Amino acid sequence: MARTYDTISFLTDYGNVDEFVGVVKSVVRDIANHVTVIDITHEVPAFDVRAGSLTLARAISYVPSGVVLAVVDPGVGTNRKCIAIEVGDGEGVLVGPDNGLLAPAVAMAGGAGRAVVLSNSDYQLAAPGTTFAGRDIFAPAAAHLCNGVDLYELGDPIDAELLMPGVIPLPREEGSALVAEVLWVDRFGNCQINVGPGEVAHLGEHIRVTVGELVGAPLTRVATLAANFSELGTGAVGLVTDSYGMLALSMDRRSAALELHIGPSDQVVLEAVIDGTDPRREAISSPVNLRINR
Amino acid sequence: MARTYDTISFLTDYGNVDEFVGVVKSVVRDIANHVTVIDITHEVPAFDVRAGSLTLARAISYVPSGVVLAVVDPGVGTNRKCIAIEVGDGEGVLVGPDNGLLAPAVAMAGGAGRAVVLSNSDYQLAAPGTTFAGRDIFAPAAAHLCNGVDLYELGDPIDAELLMPGVIPLPREEGSALVAEVLWVDRFGNCQINVGPGEVAHLGEHIRVTVGELVGAPLTRVATLAANFSELGTGAVGLVTDSYGMLALSMDRRSAALELHIGPSDQVVLEAVIDGTDPRREAISSPVNLRINR
Amino acid sequence: MARTYDTISFLTDYGNVDEFVGVVKSVVRDIANHVTVIDITHEVPAFDVRAGSLTLARAISYVPSGVVLAVVDPGVGTNRKCIAIEVGDGEGVLVGPDNGLLAPAVAMAGGAGRAVVLSNSDYQLAAPGTTFAGRDIFAPAAAHLCNGVDLYELGDPIDAELLMPGVIPLPREEGSALVAEVLWVDRFGNCQINVGPGEVAHLGEHIRVTVGELVGAPLTRVATLAANFSELGTGAVGLVTDSYGMLALSMDRRSAALELHIGPSDQVVLEAVIDGTDPRREAISSPVNLRINR
Repeated sequence: MARTYDTISFLTDYGNVDEFVGVVKSVVRDIANHVTVIDITHEVPAFDVRAGSLTLARAISYVPSGVVLAVVDPGVGTNRKCIAIEVGDGEGVLVGPDNGLLAPAVAMAGGAGRAVVLSNSDYQLAAPGTTFAGRDIFAPAAAHLCNGVDLYELGDPIDAELLMPGVIPLPREEGSALVAEVLWVDRFGNCQINVGPGEVAHLGEHIRVTVGELVGAPLTRVATLAANFSELGTGAVGLVTDSYGMLALSMDRRSAALELHIGPSDQVVLEAVIDGTDPRREAISSPVNLRINR
Repeated sequence: MARTYDTISFLTDYGNVDEFVGVVKSVVRDIANHVTVIDITHEVPAFDVRAGSLTLARAISYVPSGVVLAVVDPGVGTNRKCIAIEVGDGEGVLVGPDNGLLAPAVAMAGGAGRAVVLSNSDYQLAAPGTTFAGRDIFAPAAAHLCNGVDLYELGDPIDAELLMPGVIPLPREEGSALVAEVLWVDRFGNCQINVGPGEVAHLGEHIRVTVGELVGAPLTRVATLAANFSELGTGAVGLVTDSYGMLALSMDRRSAALELHIGPSDQVVLEAVIDGTDPRREAISSPVNLRINR
Repeated sequence: MARTYDTISFLTDYGNVDEFVGVVKSVVRDIANHVTVIDITHEVPAFDVRAGSLTLARAISYVPSGVVLAVVDPGVGTNRKCIAIEVGDGEGVLVGPDNGLLAPAVAMAGGAGRAVVLSNSDYQLAAPGTTFAGRDIFAPAAAHLCNGVDLYELGDPIDAELLMPGVIPLPREEGSALVAEVLWVDRFGNCQINVGPGEVAHLGEHIRVTVGELVGAPLTRVATLAANFSELGTGAVGLVTDSYGMLALSMDRRSAALELHIGPSDQVVLEAVIDGTDPRREAISSPVNLRINR
């Protein structure tokens, strides 16, 4: 009768050097021998809830039915809540800390259904310290869910509206310019920004990109829209529609991040080439609430 | 009839850059298709048997029943022995080099039962060189054990008393001070020391911590005992009971290791705040023998 | 009737920081739930097709029957072909870009059988951009092959002779000297060269090794042939037959690469100790064609 799962998708900021990831998988294996764990990544920068939430939001559409176990948890051991949230009428459950980490992914997955605070210690490991909730609270919860334990067995129901929202920065129009922000720099140095190709269609094929204004050393390049990296040619910075459908500042076989000296959260101003104005600009952020798609 | 296993827990200093880990898993898969391999870590510092043995000792209580495959093996290809050791009446078998790497974990798991030297080449791969025992000797042994091959088939029995002991450093009292040592620095910069919370209860809530004495640049901080990282507040160094029940020098969302300029094996002196004496101190080590718990 | 597979061996230059590897595994899991994915490595240097092809060639003999999914693909999204190649009468299929990455491994596996261009979009994911063929084209192909979809369903047959060959550098004799090249530096600093032990037998036990000539700072050492690292003794550079049967410049518990300031593709000149001549030398490369072993 009870719904079971056979996959746990696993994301943390634990890194791959310490034994943390292996210990969590050991706990899962001990409780739910049939489960396959898929590592999304464990190299989210330490303590970086924003980066973790964006990574999870990018991955969530591809994650198989089952449980998502996500832990970037600088508040571990405090009174921040440990939570589990159903999405897709129970096709998936997200387990992690209530600090905004899960919120964008929950929204992408269609919004929150039932949710609980993981308060039932029967489904937790006794531990000598409070600093490894991934091992002692989250992993057992994920594994027991896979075994068919009902969500409401794991703790007290909570209204998903009361959970911490995530923050996704939105681009802002200023005059004829679009003030954007770097969301993510990938291994190859591509800088994904919070703008899709449709939002710059009115700026033409060649777009003036200015970075570094907020730190007093503005750098301007004309970036061409391109369908892939090779099309850019050697040494040119372009704007490529990336694999998630967002624009990325990119170069062919080189790092645009190194070339432009930019990283996550940095501001990027996009303008038509003919536009000569250059005012100071500030980025704005907007909260993403659970149930956003309902 | 024969006992089989379905999990191999795998720890090495191979790193995740070369193909070593993948090749070992391929060998296991070829011999024992039903086995799931759980990576404890492969980022033990190269050649660092002490770090590997401490990591394995931390993880061993959480590892599922089955085989532990552990390889940190600077003496590969020499006459150091390749061994397999049963623990828990055969609930688990540890496979690796006889250089002390396995000893603390064997002790934690209740001490050694049957043990063999992996001398039977029928259960090894032919190889062009002697430098990859993980692939050619240890992985096949682990996989064949999973298939139900008896330990004594893999080679000659050896008395576990004759195996290389591990070395776990013990803290030392000097006057009213406790001279401790850093066992491990984790990704977040927490510095686990070889002292549990019970051993400092007499020093009070606030403890004077001195590091760097042996290198001529002593640094002193007053560390407060805390239940979690957030409790410490910004910029303060504290002593938190970590997830393995040991004390760790920690900070909130920052690296205590960077703040204090300390790393594994460094000395840490703990004193009550009222104590003003400051003598030179040396750490001592004590061997941990197999069968320690018997 | 159709041949199915239960293992995908997976190599990329995606790194372990971004979610790329996890997303590819998620796609595989969704399509072919029964498959186990074995990571060969994902830390091939970004864009480095040569390093990826050598890594795959080293690993291929150990990889289980099944599908090999290999992606180092700087030309992603261009008109370079996406291909799948059968080897060993269908015991294995290699899937990846047609840029030479697969060629040496295909040759090692006995040469190419049937091959296709992955042109059938029915077995691909719709995607907002063209930059993640690993997720949208290669992973679905690998997973569908595991499910028993026939190779010829995935696209148009292509003559394997028309595929891009790999380039494996060959050593070159110059007078009494052998001009070799570093193929690979492993985690421990061992520098594998493109020479086997049989090729230096005439040079004796002690061999003069010269590096750095091409950059104007030649460094010469006398290296002793040794069966393992410990035999070398502290501080000496030796030539050890490595686990793949090639010679490697090595040291005991230290990095020969750091000691000699060399890396992949660097030239290494081997001479008998009595030889005093020292001319400038150049390395040569030779293409490895598919079907090489037929």
